[in-house]
Amino acid sequence: MFTDRQAKNDMSDNNFVIGVDIGGTKTTVALLDRKESIVCELVEPTPKVDFTESQRGSERILKLVVSLIEKIFDITGTALSNVGGIGIGVAGTVDFKSGTVILSPNLPFRNFGLRDAMYQHFKIPIFLDNDANAAAWGEKCFGAGRGISEAICVTIGTGIGGGLIINNKIYRGSIGCAAEIGHMIIDKNGPRCGCGNYGCFEVMAAGPAIAKRAQAAIAKKPNTLVLKMAGGDMDRVNGESLALAAAEGDELALKVLREVGEIVGIAFASLVNIINPELIIVGGGVAETGDLILKFAEDTVRNCAIKPNSEMVKIVKAQLGNRAGLMGAAALIREEIKSRND
Amino acid sequence: MFTDRQAKNDMSDNNFVIGVDIGGTKTTVALLDRKESIVCELVEPTPKVDFTESQRGSERILKLVVSLIEKIFDITGTALSNVGGIGIGVAGTVDFKSGTVILSPNLPFRNFGLRDAMYQHFKIPIFLDNDANAAAWGEKCFGAGRGISEAICVTIGTGIGGGLIINNKIYRGSIGCAAEIGHMIIDKNGPRCGCGNYGCFEVMAAGPAIAKRAQAAIAKKPNTLVLKMAGGDMDRVNGESLALAAAEGDELALKVLREVGEIVGIAFASLVNIINPELIIVGGGVAETGDLILKFAEDTVRNCAIKPNSEMVKIVKAQLGNRAGLMGAAALIREEIKSRND
Repeated sequence: MFTDRQAKNDMSDNNFVIGVDIGGTKTTVALLDRKESIVCELVEPTPKVDFTESQRGSERILKLVVSLIEKIFDITGTALSNVGGIGIGVAGTVDFKSGTVILSPNLPFRNFGLRDAMYQHFKIPIFLDNDANAAAWGEKCFGAGRGISEAICVTIGTGIGGGLIINNKIYRGSIGCAAEIGHMIIDKNGPRCGCGNYGCFEVMAAGPAIAKRAQAAIAKKPNTLVLKMAGGDMDRVNGESLALAAAEGDELALKVLREVGEIVGIAFASLVNIINPELIIVGGGVAETGDLILKFAEDTVRNCAIKPNSEMVKIVKAQLGNRAGLMGAAALIREEIKSRND
Repeated sequence: MFTDRQAKNDMSDNNFVIGVDIGGTKTTVALLDRKESIVCELVEPTPKVDFTESQRGSERILKLVVSLIEKIFDITGTALSNVGGIGIGVAGTVDFKSGTVILSPNLPFRNFGLRDAMYQHFKIPIFLDNDANAAAWGEKCFGAGRGISEAICVTIGTGIGGGLIINNKIYRGSIGCAAEIGHMIIDKNGPRCGCGNYGCFEVMAAGPAIAKRAQAAIAKKPNTLVLKMAGGDMDRVNGESLALAAAEGDELALKVLREVGEIVGIAFASLVNIINPELIIVGGGVAETGDLILKFAEDTVRNCAIKPNSEMVKIVKAQLGNRAGLMGAAALIREEIKSRND
């Protein structure tokens, strides 16, 4: 990803920024030039820690991020003085005003002042936001949401995250915790969600729910291509094996994908009724393999949301893949620097 | 409502505005002075018309509004030249930019250019919005939402309407049709809603749903105070008879109110997760008699919405009653006039 030419061209000014994406499984750090091109990008697994040791675990992640940034400086020959700031997206509930990670389902952070800790190391501007907001902002600035003032960004993977773009800005709510789209309640009699409630969008339609639904269907009717596509291993049945089997016309696969698509569509219909967005941008692993899910979801939105909202909304795939958070975080620190200079 | 003193004090300048609220059952028009006090208010039933005669029906309503305004001028001795503008809230889907009522479930308007038609009569600034937005804005400016930048206003009566206050403004969505809170889908296997879908918040928890739920419970277990509170007439069983019976400790009443409150709470929990508001303001007939419904709804929000959103949101009753729309419409035209003068 590092290109010598770019690095040399831009290294004379301090218009570089660093984008960081701290996820539950991996941590990505990148150096971006003034055109927001990625000059150098490094990825490492996020250290797994005992969650009872929140402080120690948080410091290990901090150490990883610092070391990746320093490695990028080494590789590219960039001086810290040439970097305007660091933008960080982190998978968790973030108070962006104080730069604190309040809580995270998959990371050890508990009221951890990540922004100030990073500042101690680098003494340059740092901006912290949650990863879903950062990803939504990435898609808004550089991806599927360019030029759109009202958009909902939904990431469907192991969980379901959301970001709202309202009036051309990230909408954060009164204390910075808006857009928890994965925990809209779709079916009050539904299965229990990791958040403790029942029938949340996430527990009904994220990756594990899709796999579970497929496995239950296969248990009843084992003669299906889906199992073959998963190499005959029930534990490997997932959205991808469903998509492959559906492409061959497998009825069980089509049925499961239609059911999941309808649930996604019901959540989207409620969002379309509440927010009246121009665009829903769908990212994450499920979106990548889930053309049929998105088609069934779109049909449901057209049927179930009220007019004219249902007719005008477009449902599209995210364009930046797993770089959305990183690039959004970079854009956020760029704006933060600009606002400080204005 | 007309006070001579106010009228005389303020009549020397053109700082009066007119607020209009066109509802499915009644139409209210009021003259407000520069302090937004109501100087004179008139109410008439909204004319019932054959919906197939959209144009004729729309013109009859227009004529009623014009005649009520002229009557107010007569009563108060106000000259048109002393009135800065007219703000109108109308029960329906409104394109506020073009001043058109696109569609209304209970009124004959179909793509009717109400703003321009009103302008033809009075030649002063006119502002048109839907009644739920106007009511939310009324509560924000003069009622329960004063000083709050993120609030959701929900009106639970015969139907369920909503208005969103985001960043201290009415949030209208990309084409002006946001906040259709009554059509969030709560239970995809629920009863059919007037909008054509199944399990909408409105069909699950508005006035008629509450009555139906109570009637079904009474049919199974007639020995209840609820029926007595409705004068022994099953058709008169409603939120009020439930509230009266519950106050006496009637178990059936408490059970029905708890069920309804939980549904309201589930809808609110999803909204709290998506919007992260500081306040939910609940108005409409159900709110007025429904202290217990709101209590059960609040319990559900605290249990079912994610933290910290669930802990910080307050659920309060609307303060302006059925004048919220009128006063909000007046405030909207006041701002429109100001923005034209700036």
